[in-house]
Amino acid sequence: MSLEPCICGDWGTSRLRLSLCAGERVLETREGPGIGALRQPAAEALRPLIASWRSSHGRLPLFLCGMAGSRNGWRETSYLPCPADLGALREAAVRFDSEGTPVTIAPGLSCRSRLGSPEVLRGEETQMAGALALRPGLGTGSHLLCLPGTHTKWACLEDGVVRDFMTALTGELFALLRDASTLTRAARAPAEGEPAAPDASDDGEAGFESGLAAAASLASAHLLHFLFAARSAQLLDGRSREWALGYLSGLLVGSDVRDALPLFTVPAEVVLIGEPELNERYARALQRFGLTPSRLDGERCALAGLRSLERR
Amino acid sequence: MSLEPCICGDWGTSRLRLSLCAGERVLETREGPGIGALRQPAAEALRPLIASWRSSHGRLPLFLCGMAGSRNGWRETSYLPCPADLGALREAAVRFDSEGTPVTIAPGLSCRSRLGSPEVLRGEETQMAGALALRPGLGTGSHLLCLPGTHTKWACLEDGVVRDFMTALTGELFALLRDASTLTRAARAPAEGEPAAPDASDDGEAGFESGLAAAASLASAHLLHFLFAARSAQLLDGRSREWALGYLSGLLVGSDVRDALPLFTVPAEVVLIGEPELNERYARALQRFGLTPSRLDGERCALAGLRSLERR
Repeated sequence: MSLEPCICGDWGTSRLRLSLCAGERVLETREGPGIGALRQPAAEALRPLIASWRSSHGRLPLFLCGMAGSRNGWRETSYLPCPADLGALREAAVRFDSEGTPVTIAPGLSCRSRLGSPEVLRGEETQMAGALALRPGLGTGSHLLCLPGTHTKWACLEDGVVRDFMTALTGELFALLRDASTLTRAARAPAEGEPAAPDASDDGEAGFESGLAAAASLASAHLLHFLFAARSAQLLDGRSREWALGYLSGLLVGSDVRDALPLFTVPAEVVLIGEPELNERYARALQRFGLTPSRLDGERCALAGLRSLERR
Repeated sequence: MSLEPCICGDWGTSRLRLSLCAGERVLETREGPGIGALRQPAAEALRPLIASWRSSHGRLPLFLCGMAGSRNGWRETSYLPCPADLGALREAAVRFDSEGTPVTIAPGLSCRSRLGSPEVLRGEETQMAGALALRPGLGTGSHLLCLPGTHTKWACLEDGVVRDFMTALTGELFALLRDASTLTRAARAPAEGEPAAPDASDDGEAGFESGLAAAASLASAHLLHFLFAARSAQLLDGRSREWALGYLSGLLVGSDVRDALPLFTVPAEVVLIGEPELNERYARALQRFGLTPSRLDGERCALAGLRSLERR
């Protein structure tokens, strides 16, 4: 890894995370709008965010992954078809010059899932490359990687090559149901003379366990049915909104894990790559199926992956 | 059925459908806001909607079902626990006087589903009672009723008694994914020089068939995974937004039917009670599983059920 300062950015649909790096060190981080929220070209949106870094550090090469490489991003990069060697991301990255700054954008990956669906990802390829850089042992043998998030990705990694992967809508569906559904707005107001609802601080935890249990107890999914119980348990069983939110999270994460595991030859260790709180939720679901996952921080992996895009 | 004029109202969360009835005839219909949108007491919201009917017809008893009987509605009615005789709705209805008008509100039903979840419904009990009134043959023997909608209900009816029922979030989830998800906004804009997308008028139909096929082909659900294919098929396979919407509808309706059928002893005929277009979608999914459903119009059933609340 060179010691030349550079800017690394994980530019997703809803958020941009920028880091000013020098060698192994992160000097400063900043956040900006996601690609989905841009009303101007990406280069213009970026300019004010990095202006002060440029004036202090001069020429700062820029390394980006995620939706920056989509058609609606900055410059479209291809999807590398699987099997895809994570070591080949550096060569497949798109490199160009913008206002005197060298810019590098990582490609995405594509495949057919084991169930026949078309599959795409952007950003997770760089997190996986970073995981390999941080834990070189992942580069040999067979590993099942789980990258929980808005669109959770399950990837089969063999000797540093992504054989295939598949997506689950877990995070996006949770957010939709939390923010816009009838499921979490059902709580009964106390009737006249009824005592107010007790403190609900532990309810989310109990709900999460109930949701995991519902997902794990059934061979088939019945997801459409069990989702409704988030509402009906408030109406009939006196559950709180916090319980319902925990239940939905447990039901969705548990269903995701239960559906995904039978499709892969599962090694002793599954590797979670994501935000610590999401990693923790998936770890609990995996433990229910007898697996002991290891965990890597998703942001750290993204950064290590972006640094690995530098030309050697 | 008396010939006295009356007003019947199916007052759901999102919509109020009012009918001015005389005997078997509907003289006029009007729509109003759902219980979920009310900013004033229900009686006040109703008053301007029925004022002209009152001035022409004088005393007009009012029969209501649905969320009018919820705590946030007009007057709370109980949930009758299953097994619940549909003939007992008349006795269990709440009756009171409002500004000189006799008001009757139907109770809801509750049960534990065959998978152990708490279950509630409001409004569908009246549609089922109406179905019985319109097709007296449903009052003897065993029938599986399916009431598709925002919250689809599957009910086991034995000799006029609702043994139990269960809910699937099918309609609400479809609306959330259609209106607020990333799944239907993925279509690639044509690149420079690329031809514009062809006319997509048949795509919704093809998508619906693909979604049904995905749901029917698998013993397990993998719903979280197959939902994502609505997006990835646009990005990788050049599918249109219309295709994706059709696919989501087929996948959700097909998953609902596939999950529900194994839980019930399915008689030769399943009875669909809903809007004609929804009935058609469910009929196609049921036909894929070898069943030939019959169909009843949901609004007609609600009206017949409301008329059956009149005291004899």
